[in-house]
Amino acid sequence: MEIEDIEIIENNYPLYKKSICEFMGTLMLVSSIIGSGIMGDELSIDNGVALLGNTISTVGMLYIIINIFGDISGAHFNPLVTLMFWFKQEITTKHVLFYIPSQIMGGITGTITAHVMFNYTYIDFPGAHRDTTGEFISEIVSTFGLLTTIHGLVSLNKKEIVPNAVSMYIMSGYWFTLSTCFANPAVTIARTLTPTFAGISIRSWPTYFGGQTIGFFIAIPFSEWIFKNKNIKQSIEIFIFK
Amino acid sequence: MEIEDIEIIENNYPLYKKSICEFMGTLMLVSSIIGSGIMGDELSIDNGVALLGNTISTVGMLYIIINIFGDISGAHFNPLVTLMFWFKQEITTKHVLFYIPSQIMGGITGTITAHVMFNYTYIDFPGAHRDTTGEFISEIVSTFGLLTTIHGLVSLNKKEIVPNAVSMYIMSGYWFTLSTCFANPAVTIARTLTPTFAGISIRSWPTYFGGQTIGFFIAIPFSEWIFKNKNIKQSIEIFIFK
Amino acid sequence: MEIEDIEIIENNYPLYKKSICEFMGTLMLVSSIIGSGIMGDELSIDNGVALLGNTISTVGMLYIIINIFGDISGAHFNPLVTLMFWFKQEITTKHVLFYIPSQIMGGITGTITAHVMFNYTYIDFPGAHRDTTGEFISEIVSTFGLLTTIHGLVSLNKKEIVPNAVSMYIMSGYWFTLSTCFANPAVTIARTLTPTFAGISIRSWPTYFGGQTIGFFIAIPFSEWIFKNKNIKQSIEIFIFK
Amino acid sequence: MEIEDIEIIENNYPLYKKSICEFMGTLMLVSSIIGSGIMGDELSIDNGVALLGNTISTVGMLYIIINIFGDISGAHFNPLVTLMFWFKQEITTKHVLFYIPSQIMGGITGTITAHVMFNYTYIDFPGAHRDTTGEFISEIVSTFGLLTTIHGLVSLNKKEIVPNAVSMYIMSGYWFTLSTCFANPAVTIARTLTPTFAGISIRSWPTYFGGQTIGFFIAIPFSEWIFKNKNIKQSIEIFIFK
Repeated sequence: MEIEDIEIIENNYPLYKKSICEFMGTLMLVSSIIGSGIMGDELSIDNGVALLGNTISTVGMLYIIINIFGDISGAHFNPLVTLMFWFKQEITTKHVLFYIPSQIMGGITGTITAHVMFNYTYIDFPGAHRDTTGEFISEIVSTFGLLTTIHGLVSLNKKEIVPNAVSMYIMSGYWFTLSTCFANPAVTIARTLTPTFAGISIRSWPTYFGGQTIGFFIAIPFSEWIFKNKNIKQSIEIFIFK
Repeated sequence: MEIEDIEIIENNYPLYKKSICEFMGTLMLVSSIIGSGIMGDELSIDNGVALLGNTISTVGMLYIIINIFGDISGAHFNPLVTLMFWFKQEITTKHVLFYIPSQIMGGITGTITAHVMFNYTYIDFPGAHRDTTGEFISEIVSTFGLLTTIHGLVSLNKKEIVPNAVSMYIMSGYWFTLSTCFANPAVTIARTLTPTFAGISIRSWPTYFGGQTIGFFIAIPFSEWIFKNKNIKQSIEIFIFK
Repeated sequence: MEIEDIEIIENNYPLYKKSICEFMGTLMLVSSIIGSGIMGDELSIDNGVALLGNTISTVGMLYIIINIFGDISGAHFNPLVTLMFWFKQEITTKHVLFYIPSQIMGGITGTITAHVMFNYTYIDFPGAHRDTTGEFISEIVSTFGLLTTIHGLVSLNKKEIVPNAVSMYIMSGYWFTLSTCFANPAVTIARTLTPTFAGISIRSWPTYFGGQTIGFFIAIPFSEWIFKNKNIKQSIEIFIFK
Repeated sequence: MEIEDIEIIENNYPLYKKSICEFMGTLMLVSSIIGSGIMGDELSIDNGVALLGNTISTVGMLYIIINIFGDISGAHFNPLVTLMFWFKQEITTKHVLFYIPSQIMGGITGTITAHVMFNYTYIDFPGAHRDTTGEFISEIVSTFGLLTTIHGLVSLNKKEIVPNAVSMYIMSGYWFTLSTCFANPAVTIARTLTPTFAGISIRSWPTYFGGQTIGFFIAIPFSEWIFKNKNIKQSIEIFIFK
C-alpha cells in the first residue's frame, strides 16, 4: 500500500459521507450523460451534433465531480475503479461494500433526475439494442483504456491531473468506440432505464458487462507490468494473493 | 472566517473598484451569452450547432473574467454566489449591497452591448416562455451544482482551479438541463431583455428565480456538511446565526 | 518598468530572432484562421459548423505559438499588443519598429500559406463587406476585451496562464461579436487578401481599424486604473508622458 | 545531451517495455483517429461535424497517451519525433531501431482495432486519393509545426505542457491543413489500411511521406537556430556530425 494512495482511505471523512460523495458524483455524471443526450436529440437535426453536446456535457461534469469529491471519497463513481483499488489493496473490503451500491443507486437516481429535468416519466426501458460484436470489443477497449489511464497516472505520481485525464479519455471514447465508451457498470445499469438518446436495452447488458469484465482483467496486470515495472508473474499475483 | 478567503475582502482595492469589476464581469458574461446565441442562430441551420457555439463562447468568457477579476472582487458575477459568501461571513453586508446591484446592472448592460454589436434594438422582451416543471427542476439542480462546485473548491483549498471548474460546469450545464443552467438571477434578468436565442419571457421568472432559491438553500448546508465535514446541525446553523 | 516584464526585452535572443518569432507566429496564426475557414466551408453544409472548426483551429494555434515564442519575443503577434507594451515602457521603440512590420508580413505570408495548402491562388481580394455599425462596435469590444485580458494577467502576475487565456478569449470572441473578434490590425490586413470564409473586403478596413483604435485607447487606461489600482489621472498619464 | 532529456533514456524501464509503450500509444492514437472517423461519418449528415468528432477524439487520446507513456518511453508515437531526438543525440540508435517498428506495428494494429470495434473487415485499401499539391504543402507545414512545437517546448524547459500542446496543435492542424495534419509516417501507413473517413490511398504515400520528410529537415535546423539560439552553421551541423 503506497503512501500517496492511502490518504484516500485515511482522511477524516466518515465512510458514510464518502459513500454519499460516490452517490452524488455518479448521480451528477449520469444526469449529465442522459440529460445532454435528450437535449442534443431534441435540439439538433443531426445525431453527430447531439453526440458532440453529449460529449462536452459529460466531459465538463467529470472534471467537476472528480475535483470536488476526489479528496473525500477518491472519486471512483465506477464499480470497476473501486474494485481496481481494492485489488491494489488501497481500499478495504468495507469500502467496496459501501461504494458499489452507492454508485449503482446514484446512477439510477441520475437517470430519474435527468428525466424529471426534461419532463419525461421517471424511468422507461425501451432503449436501443446495442449488442453486436462491435460493442463487445468496444467495451473491452474502453475499459482497458480507462483503467490503464487511471492506474498509470496514480502509479506515476500524477494524481493531480486525473480530473483532466479522465475527462479527456471519455471525450475521446465517446467517438472512437461503437459503444460510446461506458466502461462503467453503474452507468450501464442507469442507461438501461431511459428510452432516450443515451439509452440501451437490457438485452445489451451481457455485451456491456462482459466486455467491461474482460477489459478489467486485462488492464490491471498490464498496468502493473508497465507502470509499476513488475515482471509478468508479479503483475498477475495482484489477483492471486487477494 | 478563513485565512484563504479573507483576502477577497481585505486586498487594497477600494469597494467601488471591486463593484466595477463585478459590473464589467457580468457585462462581459452576458454579452457572450446573448451575442453567441445570436451568432449561432443566424449562422447555423441547426439549433444544436447554435447551442454549441453558445456554450464555447460562454465557457471561454467565464475563464477570462474569473481569472482577471478574481483577485480584485472575488469574481462572483452572480447574486447567489455573493449571498453564499455572505452567509459564510466571508464578505460584509456592505459588499452585498454594492455587488448585487452592480451584477444586475452589468447583466442588463451586457444584453444591450450584445444587441448593439449585432445591430439589434437595445432591448426587447418577447423571449420564449420557458416555465414548465422541467425548467424549475433544472434550475434547482443547476444552482445546487454550481454553488456546490464553488463551495467545494474553496473549502478544499483548490481556489486556483475555480476558473477552469466554473467554465467546465457551465459547459456541462448548458446541455444537461432543460433550462440551460442559468443558476444566476442577474443573468436571468438580463436574458429577459432579449428576443433572441438565449432569451426568456418575464413569465418564466418565477420558474427560474424559484428554482434558483431552492437550489441555493439546499446547496449551502449540503456543502458545509460534506466539504467542511460538519454535522447536520452545524451545517444548518450557517443560516440561523446570521 | 517591472521586473517580471523586463525579461521579455533583456533575454539573450537578438532582436532579429525575436522579430522572426513575431513573423512566424503571426504567419501560423493567420494560416490557421484562413485555412480552417476554407476547410470548414468546403466540408460542411452549415456555416455554424464551419465557424466551430474555425474557432477550435485558431484556439489550438494560439496556445502553441504563445507557448513556444513567448519566452523569446513576448508573443505579441498583434501591433496593438506591441503598442500597449510600448506605452507601458516595457519594450523600446526599436522593438516596435521591428515587431509591427514583422507581424504584418507574417500575416500576409500566412494568408498565402493557407491558400497554397488548399490549392487556391496566392491572394485574392473579393472578401465580404463587413462594415456595419455592428462590426464597428464589435471591434471596440473585442479589442478592449483582448487587451484588458492580457494587461490584467500580466499586471496580476499571472503571466503563465496567458496562453490559455488568450486562446479562451478568442474562442469566446469568435462567437459573441459580429466581427468575429479580430482585435488585431495585422490579422485584419491578412484577412483582406482572401476571398474565403474568413475574408473581408478592403472597404471594411475603416470599420475594423477604427474600432480597434478606439478599443485600444479605452482598454489601456481602464486596465491601468483597475489592475494597477491607479487613480484616473495616473491611468491616463501613460499616454501623456510617453 | 541535456540533463532534462536524458531521463527518457536512463530511467529504470527496459527497452522492450518502452517499445511496448510506443506500440500501445500508437495503437490507441490510430484507433481513436480511425474509430472516430467512422463514428462521425455514420452518425452525422455533415462532414464538418464528422471532422469535429474526429478532432476531439484524437485530441483527448493524445493527451492521455503522452501523459501515461511519456515518463516511460518519451511518448514519441511518431518515427519523425524519434528521429529528431536521435539527431539531437538524446536517444541511441538502438532506441530508434526498436521504436520505429513498434510505432508502425502499433499503427497497423490500431486500424485493425478500430475496424473490429465498428464491425468492419480487418483492413481494406480503397481510401481516398489525396495527392494534390495542397496535401503536399500541407504535410510540410504540418510536420514543421509539430516538430517545432515539440522541440521548442523541450528546449525551453516546458516539457510538462507537451501533452497539452501536442493535443492543441493537432486540434488546430485537423482544420487548417488540407491533409488534416498527419505529420507522422506510422499514422500515414495505418491510414492506408482503411476505406473509411480517415483513410487515404496508397497512391497518396509519396505526397505524404515527401511532405513529412521536407518538413522534418526544415523544422530541426529552424528549431535549433531559434530555440537553442544557435547560429546558422551550428543549426545545420546537427545533421552533419551525426
